Amino acid sequence: MAERRGSLTFVLGGARSGKSSHAEALIAAHPAPWTYIATAQAFDEEMEERIAHHRARRSASWRTVDAPLDLTDTLAVMPEGAPVLVDCLTLWLSNLILADGDVAGETRRLAAMLAAPRGPWVVVANEVGLGIVPENALARRFRDEAGRLHQMVAAGADSVVFMVAGMPLVAK
Amino acid sequence: MAERRGSLTFVLGGARSGKSSHAEALIAAHPAPWTYIATAQAFDEEMEERIAHHRARRSASWRTVDAPLDLTDTLAVMPEGAPVLVDCLTLWLSNLILADGDVAGETRRLAAMLAAPRGPWVVVANEVGLGIVPENALARRFRDEAGRLHQMVAAGADSVVFMVAGMPLVAK
Amino acid sequence: MAERRGSLTFVLGGARSGKSSHAEALIAAHPAPWTYIATAQAFDEEMEERIAHHRARRSASWRTVDAPLDLTDTLAVMPEGAPVLVDCLTLWLSNLILADGDVAGETRRLAAMLAAPRGPWVVVANEVGLGIVPENALARRFRDEAGRLHQMVAAGADSVVFMVAGMPLVAK
Repeated sequence: MAERRGSLTFVLGGARSGKSSHAEALIAAHPAPWTYIATAQAFDEEMEERIAHHRARRSASWRTVDAPLDLTDTLAVMPEGAPVLVDCLTLWLSNLILADGDVAGETRRLAAMLAAPRGPWVVVANEVGLGIVPENALARRFRDEAGRLHQMVAAGADSVVFMVAGMPLVAK
Repeated sequence: MAERRGSLTFVLGGARSGKSSHAEALIAAHPAPWTYIATAQAFDEEMEERIAHHRARRSASWRTVDAPLDLTDTLAVMPEGAPVLVDCLTLWLSNLILADGDVAGETRRLAAMLAAPRGPWVVVANEVGLGIVPENALARRFRDEAGRLHQMVAAGADSVVFMVAGMPLVAK
Repeated sequence: MAERRGSLTFVLGGARSGKSSHAEALIAAHPAPWTYIATAQAFDEEMEERIAHHRARRSASWRTVDAPLDLTDTLAVMPEGAPVLVDCLTLWLSNLILADGDVAGETRRLAAMLAAPRGPWVVVANEVGLGIVPENALARRFRDEAGRLHQMVAAGADSVVFMVAGMPLVAK
């Protein structure tokens, strides 16, 4: 094939740091249609509102695919060259841990998939490791697993940006 | 008028990251007198100590104005060309939420005021969104509102810096 | 003496942000042997696992010295020109506070020692001040003391990097 290989951009940042908007703008620089892989699961009203808020901001050029757990398999069937946004790794990891999944195996499998993008792929994640050590053991485990996953994804990315108040700081 | 329009610098960072010192140094590069708009309210001894600590560090060239809630109106009457430091947006937002104010309206009004600075203005805020998701619903709401406010302020700023151990990382 | 003076690199970052790996790589760019000054104290199984994990990653070229509290004195006897890694300031500070030590005095003494490195020295610390304000008063004090220490160390460092997903953002 003459098509160029894909690229991976990793957008990391805190709560309401403009990660999704920045990631969407990166994807929208490519010709539509764009695929939005959503990992959120609405367990309660607060979450439903957040999902609705995000969905309302996206235009009709987006096709949304839900992948709360089967993210790697979903990426595996994305067409060659298709712009894909994964929002976000943090909820996927949270779902995986809550479902008592094989965290080490599944995160490695995902990182390997992301390291071989077949189009302009952008993945979003929440940085959660810059506060005080949580008292809750599950929270401590979560931030450790998240940090490990972020390092793996960043290692395979062409570009890594850290969002600060809506502005991207280029880390790679 | 022949005077140049103002500029807005947004200094964002964590606890004890050197935000205030950096912001004060930016203001002190301009001719005195300098106006310090303080948003802190002393509810307890710990807060009183923090306020006293900050006040003690500033020289006599500073004129302090307290604006725990009426920050936008206070900025509206700042003289053309006057160097102004706002320290900090985080306490103002906290005061606004505790006073059950119109958060969406007031933050938009403040962001609009800051986007049209009439002198060298520097505003400080605490980044609070990079830890684990808080269990407390009010804390979750606070960090969401703070993140939204930071994005609005950064969008209207000439310069955005993220403080790391006293060192400014330039985000815009 | 004809020997060149040392240098200090300060590696700051969140949980699992790749701080230790980055710091070890910086040291490994110098000829072995390398000294690893460990400040961790194993109070429980979780901590023992973390220590073992870190130790297992290091090769036989490393000589490990434990200094949970007497870090400054340990640095004072490091040979001229020797590559030294301190991992990490955060646990040292935590040990000092738990031991009810003279925090202001000891942190100043450490910062003065680090500001006059006698070889390629690299120190690691956890940024803990970018989450929501902790409800716990000890946690609030800890993040204040940590922030002050980080500013002092950064002021005396030749280079300061902020780790994001394993990637160093240069702050100084």
